[in-house]
Amino acid sequence: MLDKRSPLPLHQQLKAAIEERILSGEWLPGAQVLSEREFCEEYAISRITVRQALTALVMEGRLVRAQGRGTFVALPRIEQQLTQLTGFTQDMQARGKRPSARVLEAGSVAALPTVARALQIAVGESVIMLKRLRLADGEPVAIETAYLLESRCRGILKETLATRSLYDILTRKYQLKPARARQQMEAIACPAAEAKLLGTRRGAPVLHIHRTTYDRAGRPFELVESFYRGDRYTFHAELQADGLAGDAIQPGEKT
Amino acid sequence: MLDKRSPLPLHQQLKAAIEERILSGEWLPGAQVLSEREFCEEYAISRITVRQALTALVMEGRLVRAQGRGTFVALPRIEQQLTQLTGFTQDMQARGKRPSARVLEAGSVAALPTVARALQIAVGESVIMLKRLRLADGEPVAIETAYLLESRCRGILKETLATRSLYDILTRKYQLKPARARQQMEAIACPAAEAKLLGTRRGAPVLHIHRTTYDRAGRPFELVESFYRGDRYTFHAELQADGLAGDAIQPGEKT
Repeated sequence: MLDKRSPLPLHQQLKAAIEERILSGEWLPGAQVLSEREFCEEYAISRITVRQALTALVMEGRLVRAQGRGTFVALPRIEQQLTQLTGFTQDMQARGKRPSARVLEAGSVAALPTVARALQIAVGESVIMLKRLRLADGEPVAIETAYLLESRCRGILKETLATRSLYDILTRKYQLKPARARQQMEAIACPAAEAKLLGTRRGAPVLHIHRTTYDRAGRPFELVESFYRGDRYTFHAELQADGLAGDAIQPGEKT
Repeated sequence: MLDKRSPLPLHQQLKAAIEERILSGEWLPGAQVLSEREFCEEYAISRITVRQALTALVMEGRLVRAQGRGTFVALPRIEQQLTQLTGFTQDMQARGKRPSARVLEAGSVAALPTVARALQIAVGESVIMLKRLRLADGEPVAIETAYLLESRCRGILKETLATRSLYDILTRKYQLKPARARQQMEAIACPAAEAKLLGTRRGAPVLHIHRTTYDRAGRPFELVESFYRGDRYTFHAELQADGLAGDAIQPGEKT
């Protein structure tokens, strides 16, 4: 089934073949795939080729190795749109997952320079800090530390932040509706403390995200620093070529 | 300078203080920061606290440790907008960096299922494959493997793809102008072969990106699989709340 005369290396072809068997639903999430020996026999290739393909798929998070038990199809990642401003609770509900949170730290703190700059306040001014572990169906997937303008949401820490959406409370109780946000993301090696909370290993790839959230008047009221498990998330974005706004009409766009 | 009564742990405060000294320009990229002992003395804190802060900054890619020589401020990351469809050459030029490429593999290959699906062709149909190492000012920062519809750009491999922008050639010579793209990105552990090319270590965090590019008629003509060095890139996005298109006027937006 692999093409030995193709310029594509065999391990890459095998990798594609395995991905296809996962995508087609032949191998469902959690299912065990063939053993190395079985792959060698079925595709008539060397064990070294099989190992290269399997290792690449493990590093990409498509397969998971369980010591002494074999290789399994990884659980599907959480798919997230990168242009829609939504909170974790809403994201999870839209995906049929049960969102929850464990409050790790909460209180008033003096704004450090980065926080002060994002929220356009003076360094040392009091802000509300809320650090939560976010879970999807009980599995830890992200750590979010939000810094909120204290003057805009005094008393919010008395709310039940483990079960309710922060954005929901801000909107309903404080008339503070998130309108837009600037977000920056980087792939970093997970620090030890965060790895422990996320149930992953130190140094595992995580997405490190900073978001500044603005109200409808364009005033910033929240800075969030997050760590998202790299193996649990896929982010989606739509890209537009420059100068095409006028002539490339998108579905649903006003003309 | 650190506040020992704050609920923010000291290592976090020190981390913020170091970030601030970098941001303010006191410590420029490439500059050596204080030694652990000097940090202990200057901030009157324990060595364990200093190590925690420094390690976190190294894992985030803000600082770099050089064995036996000390700790240095990392080079700034390449800042990239996540909503603009641009090519590597254009991105680098906009940032005052000299783009270049090393062609790793190029040729006609039979489309694997993933490629066929993205390009809306039959599995096994011939596509042009172009795998390039991308460099910014001579430093390897990304690996891009493009699969192009052969019927739309026959003969393109004869062009000088090491120095010219692929999108530029497609636009000028083949009247194939990238209009929009769908992109998905994940943080993964860098596989061995890619790590060697990128000059990073196996398992280092990299951004694994898939892009399908469409022409103005909405037809896909390119699928690109890329690996971007996690420690060299920051991606930016603007997020909008749902249902706000009508009532939240953005600067410069038509009303």
